[in-house]
Amino acid sequence: MFQSFEDSARPEQGPPRLESLRAELAREGLSGWLVPRADRFQGEYVAPTDERLAWLTGFTGSAGWCVALAERAGLFVDGRYRVQARAQAAEAFEIVHWPETGLAEWITGALGGAGRIGFDPWLVTVEQKRKLSEALGQIALVPCENLIDRVWTDRPAPPMGRIRAHPESLAGRAHADKIADLAQGLGGARHAVITLPDSVAWLLNIRGSDIPRNPVPHAMAILHGDARVTLFVEAGKLEELGDHLGAQVTVAPPQSLGDALAGLDGPVRIDPASCPVALAQILADAGLKIIEGEDPCLLPKARKTEAELAGMRAAQLRDGAAMVRFLAWLDAEAPGDLTEIAVVRKLEAERRAGNELLDISFDTIAGAGAHGAIVHYRVTERTDAALEAGQLLLVDSGGQYADGTTDITRTVPIGQVGEEERQNFTRVLRGMIAISRLRWPKGLAGRDLDAFARAPLWEAGLDYGHGTGHGVGVYLSVHEGPQRLARTGTVPFEPGMILSNEPGFYREGAYGIRIENLIAVARAPDLPGGTVEEMFVFETLTYVPIDRRLVVPEMLTRPERDWLDAYHATCRARLEPLVEGTVRDWLIAATEPL
Amino acid sequence: MFQSFEDSARPEQGPPRLESLRAELAREGLSGWLVPRADRFQGEYVAPTDERLAWLTGFTGSAGWCVALAERAGLFVDGRYRVQARAQAAEAFEIVHWPETGLAEWITGALGGAGRIGFDPWLVTVEQKRKLSEALGQIALVPCENLIDRVWTDRPAPPMGRIRAHPESLAGRAHADKIADLAQGLGGARHAVITLPDSVAWLLNIRGSDIPRNPVPHAMAILHGDARVTLFVEAGKLEELGDHLGAQVTVAPPQSLGDALAGLDGPVRIDPASCPVALAQILADAGLKIIEGEDPCLLPKARKTEAELAGMRAAQLRDGAAMVRFLAWLDAEAPGDLTEIAVVRKLEAERRAGNELLDISFDTIAGAGAHGAIVHYRVTERTDAALEAGQLLLVDSGGQYADGTTDITRTVPIGQVGEEERQNFTRVLRGMIAISRLRWPKGLAGRDLDAFARAPLWEAGLDYGHGTGHGVGVYLSVHEGPQRLARTGTVPFEPGMILSNEPGFYREGAYGIRIENLIAVARAPDLPGGTVEEMFVFETLTYVPIDRRLVVPEMLTRPERDWLDAYHATCRARLEPLVEGTVRDWLIAATEPL
Repeated sequence: MFQSFEDSARPEQGPPRLESLRAELAREGLSGWLVPRADRFQGEYVAPTDERLAWLTGFTGSAGWCVALAERAGLFVDGRYRVQARAQAAEAFEIVHWPETGLAEWITGALGGAGRIGFDPWLVTVEQKRKLSEALGQIALVPCENLIDRVWTDRPAPPMGRIRAHPESLAGRAHADKIADLAQGLGGARHAVITLPDSVAWLLNIRGSDIPRNPVPHAMAILHGDARVTLFVEAGKLEELGDHLGAQVTVAPPQSLGDALAGLDGPVRIDPASCPVALAQILADAGLKIIEGEDPCLLPKARKTEAELAGMRAAQLRDGAAMVRFLAWLDAEAPGDLTEIAVVRKLEAERRAGNELLDISFDTIAGAGAHGAIVHYRVTERTDAALEAGQLLLVDSGGQYADGTTDITRTVPIGQVGEEERQNFTRVLRGMIAISRLRWPKGLAGRDLDAFARAPLWEAGLDYGHGTGHGVGVYLSVHEGPQRLARTGTVPFEPGMILSNEPGFYREGAYGIRIENLIAVARAPDLPGGTVEEMFVFETLTYVPIDRRLVVPEMLTRPERDWLDAYHATCRARLEPLVEGTVRDWLIAATEPL
Repeated sequence: MFQSFEDSARPEQGPPRLESLRAELAREGLSGWLVPRADRFQGEYVAPTDERLAWLTGFTGSAGWCVALAERAGLFVDGRYRVQARAQAAEAFEIVHWPETGLAEWITGALGGAGRIGFDPWLVTVEQKRKLSEALGQIALVPCENLIDRVWTDRPAPPMGRIRAHPESLAGRAHADKIADLAQGLGGARHAVITLPDSVAWLLNIRGSDIPRNPVPHAMAILHGDARVTLFVEAGKLEELGDHLGAQVTVAPPQSLGDALAGLDGPVRIDPASCPVALAQILADAGLKIIEGEDPCLLPKARKTEAELAGMRAAQLRDGAAMVRFLAWLDAEAPGDLTEIAVVRKLEAERRAGNELLDISFDTIAGAGAHGAIVHYRVTERTDAALEAGQLLLVDSGGQYADGTTDITRTVPIGQVGEEERQNFTRVLRGMIAISRLRWPKGLAGRDLDAFARAPLWEAGLDYGHGTGHGVGVYLSVHEGPQRLARTGTVPFEPGMILSNEPGFYREGAYGIRIENLIAVARAPDLPGGTVEEMFVFETLTYVPIDRRLVVPEMLTRPERDWLDAYHATCRARLEPLVEGTVRDWLIAATEPL
């Protein structure tokens, strides 16, 4: 079982740890210390050795900051995490509504305009530091050895997960070609520092196992303009890799990264959005010219190859069969006999059944009734609830397979549900279909299209508080940029980009609805009489029945109904060969036309 | 008759004028001279005295530049005007595709990286100069007395149009209140320079008559932080104004503006997007601190008062009755008997009939057949064409009334038209209805919503090459910012903002379709169960039948059909009292449900 259900909240541990940190603050002459929920790789998940924010505060969410001052300590969390943070952190930590209140604003208010705030320059990016410094005015930001690490006496060792080759047949391109291509596009720079592990993994066609859920290695790299790469990684992780890396790639110990950077010749490109302050400082101290620019792997990684798209289709189909077995099982169980944890266990078991699941792509969200309205709900032994007749159950989950990453949400009725739930499900479905049916001219970005997913909800005075979709990696991170289907999405869509399409609706204290498929940007076929030169459509990658019992047919337009019927016909055609017996019967019934 | 149909193209006049300009260039030691199609007020229309671009090149379009060098002359026009520019300008002028090719790029290419380009600092904005200077690199931009004016011996005198008060009952606010409000919002500035005539007109509740179509005065103003205004205008224009301006407003001659600016105390705010370089230079020379910021009138002017909205409704209704009389007449005429000019004359006559028309709000676009595909077509004696059976006729027009400005486009069939035309008309109509029916949360801008107008066309591989809508003034400019319903629209919509809603489709060489209503942003009524705090809708202001003969009913969804039927029911209810006889019969027939 990948997922665990423990509740790690032990608020009483926080205050003594905070006191020991404060003793270090006093020793260093600092007014405060910054604790981001980040490691030097700036990914979504951190290894136990980097769980400094959780160690200090008890808060285990995936984003947040703590600012520890001599008299006060602020725990900055966003809207998703306010309830959780209050439950996990002791009273000594003030829960600050972030980003409504910024770190600098709170610090300035607390310190009155003068002071010295220490931070670990490996854990803060160039861009974060720049913005924070500006906002802090007279208060200084002081880079410093990590004070948490000084007082965290039983800190776990860094991960030593093995690295394996990602086959060229699945990547669609040799890593030597990727390196050669990117080396030519460095603009005025002679070298580029690659600090994001999924960029390193993509560039070198490797996958790692240092953190849960994302198969990335803790490794950084320098891409040289002469088409060589220096990979900074513990040699012990490479034992199974053989000669995969090839002559273009030199391996060096992580501790040598600083010296290697200082010894470079010519301008060096860094991405201020992800590069640690410490690395930029090393370059500056060595007198090297720094050119700021986006991580050169981001866009090429987002444009999936034909092989990657084929792998994603295969992974969604395999994963879809597991979903269908799970949904058929769920339908046959009596309400009240199951709890959310049982649902999560069964779903993971179905995904594991074929022995191809390498990990889940994130902790399954299984929220019954009011839990469904908590957008990032993760069930624990403490919160586990029985499924009751009349509830909606929202299940958002995914798997990591060698050929692809999946992410799917289905919302199903437990017994008979109310008319409001069905109407709002139908509104969410209409938005999801609107995105699926879009055809649009080249040049548009997420911001230009996001509203189509919301308009059916807006009609009823409703909306949802998250983006409509995120980019998705191929056996990489389930959240991947730079494209987004959201108001913040300004990167134009290009063929091969994969996104989620997941509108929702959440009635606080009552129920949650979300429907999610993965989709890929594709060139649209020419139409007779068409005048627009290049148009795109979304290819749907996910095929799993959408619960017809929750659809109010009269609320759908004819084209929406046709889309749903065609979608279900494809579900049946693709999945029927993969299931049998009662599951097959369930599939046939679930994919009947409306 | 406001509109004229003369064709002023006399290409042969250009070359000798260009030669006399070149003689001045040589005298001044300049490599070239910039001729914008602009006066110091940066509006859409210029008075004859400011038609320097047309005088030099023959080109009479509403946007463009000429760069005259010793050996070459480039006439920079956008996609709308390429055909027209080639027809109007002599061969001595190269037609440059702008903005695809920028001025600086062309100049650099022609001069090879060194030179001195002269310009009139009253005709170029701070922002234009800044961007151009950056792009020109080593080539200098030299402010200079206007060289065109030196050689244009029979240049008309500046306009001396009288100024009248715009009644508070129509404006909805006393100008003293507007001044007091704005004076408090100048941020760090003690004065703001207002150079846009429609801002001056709005701020002081006055209207002018210096240029056609836009009832604005050629006047500038300084808004002082102590809630006083100095108005720089020819005293002769004010003879009919009485004591309207009041004690807060001091009148000064336009020539004294420079001295007045130089004599100010404290920081002065200018809008770099509209302030002439000459004014900024005067402030800089006087050692005054310049604070750049948006013209403080722009947003308040865009948020129409209840009185302005009421006036706009009344004006659209009056104008709608004229449109209905016109459309009934058109329907009764035999194809072939009419030409485009006859259509324009009849429509203006109907608008004038009630003696309330003060001007047309722009030259009527009446394009039959292929002329309809020229987005900014203005018929002349030379291009005038007979309406033929089987054609579409596109008529885009509007009026200026004391209580409001109108802008409406209807496309009608001449006899029986083809199935393709009807299908594409229906697609355009669906986009127009989609905008009309939208309900959306506070905070969104034009970019977030523009795609709804296009999606029905995108489905068929079609699109249109202009924005979906522009802001509209109240008895002011028919094109008014800062809001736009377009991909370039980033100013969030607010209640009271008025926009056009005018999707279209243009089949080059064949036909044009556009349907346009004016709409106003309004607070949406609360809905039971709604969760979004503040939502907006568009109130439709224009009520004139949309030609039902061009609608393919099966292509409409039920809600779209319901919208159209309800729209026509309202047209009938509002317009029936205003028309009689055969026009009334026509109205009843034209507003039947589908």
